[in-house]
Formats: sequence, structure tokens, C-alpha cells
Amino acid sequence: MRCNLQQIRYAHVTKLGNQAKGLLFRQLFHDASYTYTYFLGCAKTRKAVVIDPVLEMVDRDIKFIEEMNLKLVYGLNTHVHADHVTGTGKLKQRIPGFQSVLSKASGGKADMLIEDGEVIQFGEQSIHCSATPGHTNGCMTYILPDHSMAFTGDALLIRACGRTDFQQGNAGQLYDSVYKRIFSLPDHYFLYPGHDYMGFSVTTVAEEKVLNPRLTLSRDEFINFMKELNLKYPKLIDIAVPTNLKCGEISKEALQGSAELLSKK
Amino acid sequence: MRCNLQQIRYAHVTKLGNQAKGLLFRQLFHDASYTYTYFLGCAKTRKAVVIDPVLEMVDRDIKFIEEMNLKLVYGLNTHVHADHVTGTGKLKQRIPGFQSVLSKASGGKADMLIEDGEVIQFGEQSIHCSATPGHTNGCMTYILPDHSMAFTGDALLIRACGRTDFQQGNAGQLYDSVYKRIFSLPDHYFLYPGHDYMGFSVTTVAEEKVLNPRLTLSRDEFINFMKELNLKYPKLIDIAVPTNLKCGEISKEALQGSAELLSKK
Repeated sequence: MRCNLQQIRYAHVTKLGNQAKGLLFRQLFHDASYTYTYFLGCAKTRKAVVIDPVLEMVDRDIKFIEEMNLKLVYGLNTHVHADHVTGTGKLKQRIPGFQSVLSKASGGKADMLIEDGEVIQFGEQSIHCSATPGHTNGCMTYILPDHSMAFTGDALLIRACGRTDFQQGNAGQLYDSVYKRIFSLPDHYFLYPGHDYMGFSVTTVAEEKVLNPRLTLSRDEFINFMKELNLKYPKLIDIAVPTNLKCGEISKEALQGSAELLSKK
Repeated sequence: MRCNLQQIRYAHVTKLGNQAKGLLFRQLFHDASYTYTYFLGCAKTRKAVVIDPVLEMVDRDIKFIEEMNLKLVYGLNTHVHADHVTGTGKLKQRIPGFQSVLSKASGGKADMLIEDGEVIQFGEQSIHCSATPGHTNGCMTYILPDHSMAFTGDALLIRACGRTDFQQGNAGQLYDSVYKRIFSLPDHYFLYPGHDYMGFSVTTVAEEKVLNPRLTLSRDEFINFMKELNLKYPKLIDIAVPTNLKCGEISKEALQGSAELLSKK
């Protein structure tokens, strides 16, 4: 699976190459949770989808959609997040016809429960759903073959990957997902992560295959490495997970339960 | 200068269209100052430039350059920043042959003092320097006509613009700079700002001409609006300005003077 740096010489050139193909693309950032939200629009029909919106940024996102004359049809969650609440619940309240999307394997609720291999259409554009479990059991990578881009959520981060120590996380499974579903994409594909904590915004298949310090380990080394990370319990998990399992519909019980749990920490 | 939204229908499609043209492009973020730093590399020769590096992120930036097998030749400052210290001084210490770049009009020191209309070459790629004073007297917008992109520093921000109440700022001059040098670019050009505080990463000429709430005012209204902003004195200005006037060479005097000033606030 390794490729040498000479091979990736031309692979990572500029962010995208789709001006002529009619895709409107924007990457947005939420500073408190270091989350990336992505808007993808069909420039012809104005139908658009959002990947991983954040609850606190819904007002910003709606203003942007209106300014750009887009009709938001789907809100795609890459997985049930533990570190922030998805904006898809609030977007549903604000935008008639908007549908939340989540993988069936996550065990959560959504307007549209998707499975590996499904294709989501918005106007003349399409997104392919590729199951990449391991960070959680329901992680989905969204791929746009027409534009050589993939949205990896927390399965693959830039020079890193999502943790595997809760929410049915499984390091071996994550390793296999990345190799089979992400590193098997063409080298020049742009990979857009769910988060970045160092200020990076995008990477490519080519460079992660060579430069990702975790995923360039052997499978066994990777499993051991992930076991020994000893990360802190995420502050927001007890609010975020129950809420995100319902695509952002916040229940009183969840908030109360979480407030209690958070106050104990 | 106004264009209607229908005209910009196809203008803002995806971030860039240059895969075939051999430009390596990355946008990086510094969360504490909300600053964007940009790397532009010639994919063939590996020669690269950085626009507005941040002192605190130089280690990250050097690691990235090394990983990507780039040879960093120029560090371009869009202006003498008041809110963070440029990384060009530290990069000079770390990278042999690296040169800092700043506009002559800024009155600062640099290895290369540039003037309006100059072209900076790196490998097979070139950047055009366009003077856009008004936020400061030495602001420079860097334009890549081959890639339909411009780096506006603080002259034009997404749906906003830089303040004009210090460092020889002049609202009327800024208004003229934006109209003559940025809004006169083709509608589809991507504009990359020096900062964004709401999580946006890129905009286009087309949408700023229609949607920028400040720059869609008349010249007189804009001047009044900027006069009435009443912004706080930037915390870091007394360290940042004297240091940035020397492209990041931090003098003991500047630090001492600033520490005193900061402690009084």
C-alpha cells in the first residue's frame, strides 16, 4: 500500500479541479469543537447537501444557504458524534423538506438511514456512501468520484485518525476500513476530515498513505498504539451521543442526564 | 459594479480548478488569531511560497514543508499585521535562502521590498502584486491569474473588511482599493482572506460584490460606517507592529515596551 514521495509529486495540487463540473463547494469551521462542516451544491439546480453541520452554527449556515440561493435537501452525518451536537435536528425545524441522513449501522434515528454502497443524488451531483466503521460502528465516508474528493469524518484525520475506545470503537476494524475504503481510492483524491486540531484543512490519499504516523504502522502495531492512547473522556459525550442518535433532536432527558454527568467530572 | 445573483450562479463552484496546472495549494489556520496562512507550491520544481505565516505555527509549517518535499523560497506578508507576529523572521532563521517579502509602501524592512505591479516567480508559477492600501498604507493583494485566485490579506474579508482606524488606515482609500483592484477581477476569482472569525474559508469576487454588507455601501456611507465601528485597541499591536515592520525579527525593546503597554490594559 505504500507509495513513495516521488509518486505523489503531482497528486496534491490545489484544492479541487471542478469549476467546469458545476459543483459549489465550501468548507466551514466551528472553532469550539474544531469541526469541519461542508456544503456541496449543484450549481445548476441549486440543490445542496451539508455534511456534519454543528448545532451552534446553524444560524450561520442558514444565512449562507440563503445568500447563495441554495436549496438544502439533505444533512449527512458521517457518524454519531461524541464531541458536538449535530445541526441536522435544528436544520429540519428551519428548512421545509430538509432530511437528516445517518447510517443504519449506527443504530440511530434519521429521516434517511443509509447503507454501504448507496448513492445520494442532489441535482446533477451524486455522493457515494462507503461504510468505514471502527471509530464508531456506524461511520460512513462520503465520496464524490466525479470530483476526486472524499469526506472521511473521524475515520481518517490529517496525519491521525479518530479514537477507538468508546461507542463500539474497534481499532482493527478502523485499520481495515481505512485500507479497504480510503487508501484504495486513487492517490490524487482529496480527503476532507471531520476535524483538525492543527489548522490543516485538506489532505490527499497519496500523502496519508505515506505520512500518516498511525496508519503507516502494521495492523498489530496500530491496535496497540490505539489501546495505549489513554484519552480523556469527551466532555460532551453524554449530551452529544443520545442527541446525535436522533440526528440532533435534543430531549430533555438527555440534557438533564448529561448535565448531571458533566457536573460530576 | 453590482451584479445580480443569477449572474454568479456558476461563479462560485468548488475551491479551485487547477489540478492540471501544477499548483500545490493549502490553506492553514491559526486558531488563536483566526489567521489564514497559505502555501503555494510549484508541483514541478517544488519551489514554494508562504503567505502570512504566523510565528507560533512555524514548527507546524516547517514540518509540512519537509513532508511535502517543498523548497520554501519566499515568505510574503500581505501587510504589517497588528494582531499577530509574522512567522517570516523565524522561517528565515530555519530555512537557508528563504527571503521575507513586504511592500515598500509599508515602510518596513524585508529581504525583498515589493511595489505595485511586480511579479514574483516560484518555479513555473507566478504571483502578481497589487497594491490595496487603506487598512494599512502598505497592504498588498497577491493575485494568481493562472489560477483565478487572489489573497486579499485584511483589505477584503469574507462579508467584511479590515479596520481603518490605525496604522495609516484610510476608509476612502480602502474602498477605492477594493473596487479598483479586487472587484475589478473576473467574477469567478476565488478570494482568500487574511482572517475569518465565523469559520468561512473562501469567497468569490461575484458574491462579495453583491453580499459584502460594507462594500456594497456607497463610498460616503462606507467611510461613515468605518468611522463609527469603535473597535477595541488590538491587544498585540504594540508587539506585533514593531516586530512585523522587520518581518518578524523580534527586538528586546519591542517586547519590553509591549509588555509594559499590555500590562496597563
